[in-house]
Amino acid sequence: MTGSVLALCGGIGGAKLALGLSRSLGAGDLTVLVNTGDDFDHLGLRISPDIDTVLYTLAGLSDTERGWGRADETWNFMSSLREIGGESWFQLGDRDLAMHVERTRYLRGGGTLTDFVEQVAHRLGVGPRILPMTDEDVRTIVETDEGSLEFQRYFVEQRCRPRVRSLWFAGACLTRVSAAVSHAIFDATRAIIICPSNPYLSIDPILSIPGMRAALDQATAPIVAVSPIIGGEAVKGPTAKIMSELGTPVTNASIAKHYRGLIDGLIVDTVDRDDAAAIDLPVQVTRTLMQDLADRTRLGRDVLAFAESLAPSRLERVVSRHMTAGVYA
Amino acid sequence: MTGSVLALCGGIGGAKLALGLSRSLGAGDLTVLVNTGDDFDHLGLRISPDIDTVLYTLAGLSDTERGWGRADETWNFMSSLREIGGESWFQLGDRDLAMHVERTRYLRGGGTLTDFVEQVAHRLGVGPRILPMTDEDVRTIVETDEGSLEFQRYFVEQRCRPRVRSLWFAGACLTRVSAAVSHAIFDATRAIIICPSNPYLSIDPILSIPGMRAALDQATAPIVAVSPIIGGEAVKGPTAKIMSELGTPVTNASIAKHYRGLIDGLIVDTVDRDDAAAIDLPVQVTRTLMQDLADRTRLGRDVLAFAESLAPSRLERVVSRHMTAGVYA
Repeated sequence: MTGSVLALCGGIGGAKLALGLSRSLGAGDLTVLVNTGDDFDHLGLRISPDIDTVLYTLAGLSDTERGWGRADETWNFMSSLREIGGESWFQLGDRDLAMHVERTRYLRGGGTLTDFVEQVAHRLGVGPRILPMTDEDVRTIVETDEGSLEFQRYFVEQRCRPRVRSLWFAGACLTRVSAAVSHAIFDATRAIIICPSNPYLSIDPILSIPGMRAALDQATAPIVAVSPIIGGEAVKGPTAKIMSELGTPVTNASIAKHYRGLIDGLIVDTVDRDDAAAIDLPVQVTRTLMQDLADRTRLGRDVLAFAESLAPSRLERVVSRHMTAGVYA
Repeated sequence: MTGSVLALCGGIGGAKLALGLSRSLGAGDLTVLVNTGDDFDHLGLRISPDIDTVLYTLAGLSDTERGWGRADETWNFMSSLREIGGESWFQLGDRDLAMHVERTRYLRGGGTLTDFVEQVAHRLGVGPRILPMTDEDVRTIVETDEGSLEFQRYFVEQRCRPRVRSLWFAGACLTRVSAAVSHAIFDATRAIIICPSNPYLSIDPILSIPGMRAALDQATAPIVAVSPIIGGEAVKGPTAKIMSELGTPVTNASIAKHYRGLIDGLIVDTVDRDDAAAIDLPVQVTRTLMQDLADRTRLGRDVLAFAESLAPSRLERVVSRHMTAGVYA
């Protein structure tokens, strides 16, 4: 089967699947739509954590042991910054820093994040297209029992310790889905994949962009999500903790419910094969834990195959929706 | 003898003597007035090369072998910047970078360079006060046979290759000597020392600040320059090349002429003891080449002793000038 694939993701977990997908797809057949709700300004520099994680992962530059940042990283900037009394709660590696300095310079000169990422991806020899969810400032705000926290303050400084009451995306209401994103959704004729990223922190910011949900609803490609929950826990990060704090059972059924109306099918891990019965959607059971490149590549293939199986029913659903709306009347 | 000492300097050569002076003087008795004409914005960061050289030298952090930048420096930021296609003609070490990022942040927040340098010097345990010549933007422009060049383009990118026709200091006419600098000159009752920095590139920018020359002329302390020329050559940098290109003989007499009316005496190296006859100023002959800390300390002591010997005639000259101007009439 041919056609383009669009993958929605946040940082580490999502980037793993994006890498797996890139192994099965020709260059130009994969676009990765990345959360920028975690972006922030720090020390006068614009940091885009998820974008950079995806860039480094697809360029083969990421540190797979530490799980974030670049391999062979050094930390002399940080040590020197501490000496002169600079803010040091957010770790910036010496190699990684080049990205932030160059991005800040580029954006200050009037360039867009989309163009910057495209140029850097090209320089780093990355085949798939990496597309920020927006070029505008949209910031994930975590409302907690200790007050309102910007994402990185919650995630890095507070290490996800405060209890989450709700999340919102400051600035989203002032944006519109960009032409680049809208085209990428329209062009994705083979599959749209929601990576096993944190639904609240990584995927919801993308969906919060006005027009994003409507564009996805009109896509002809089947939309498949890979659940980030395995055996009642998240592989990494605060997904399970946040679900509990929001009063949502930490189950695949909750993930299906979260994405209800958006997705055509859900992929769950083999340990959760009994969950399928409780989910009123097509469910594919496969191993979703990605420990090495072989895992990522195999999961990528499984996701594409599952999407292919859902294509006829998706098309039927979208056409009937269009007809109801009078598009083909 | 007691009282405060003010040293005017640029980067490397000047910083060596500043360090030597600091060994003979109590904390609080030395202020170093530093050229900022070499400062520039690069990659969106404000770089202050001479200020940082003086800071690192006095903090014991400078790389004495390479001659510039910090010891134990690494270059991973630069290598990563090259990977993504950033401008790489100006080398920024990983440790050094913290200074530029933090300074840029501080200045953008409305702080002054003077305050930033004071805070960093305190953090790094530097005893002497380090004072930028101005908090305004004054930029050394080198007019060459290949056109007008900003200082760092001439100095670093072109490695001083183009022939110099003249130099000027953009923005200087819009500034005034600051209260901090004016107080430092007034407070320097023991000696004012012009370090063996490049007169054209490092000292002239300081003297170009409107009001600077008048403040120095009114100082009660003797003003002594250490010649940067030894045996018809400069120890380091383009001083001799620039003098030739400007049609000035590369001699100590030219240095004396350059500072005529400003200084009360000139220090020349022992190899140039025969030059004294051609100079119509008090000349002190001593070893001025500074190869190690002992050299720097000894030269610092020699300069202070020479200044002390010139104090009575300086005082007489300044008082007579004041009386002519009717100040004591």
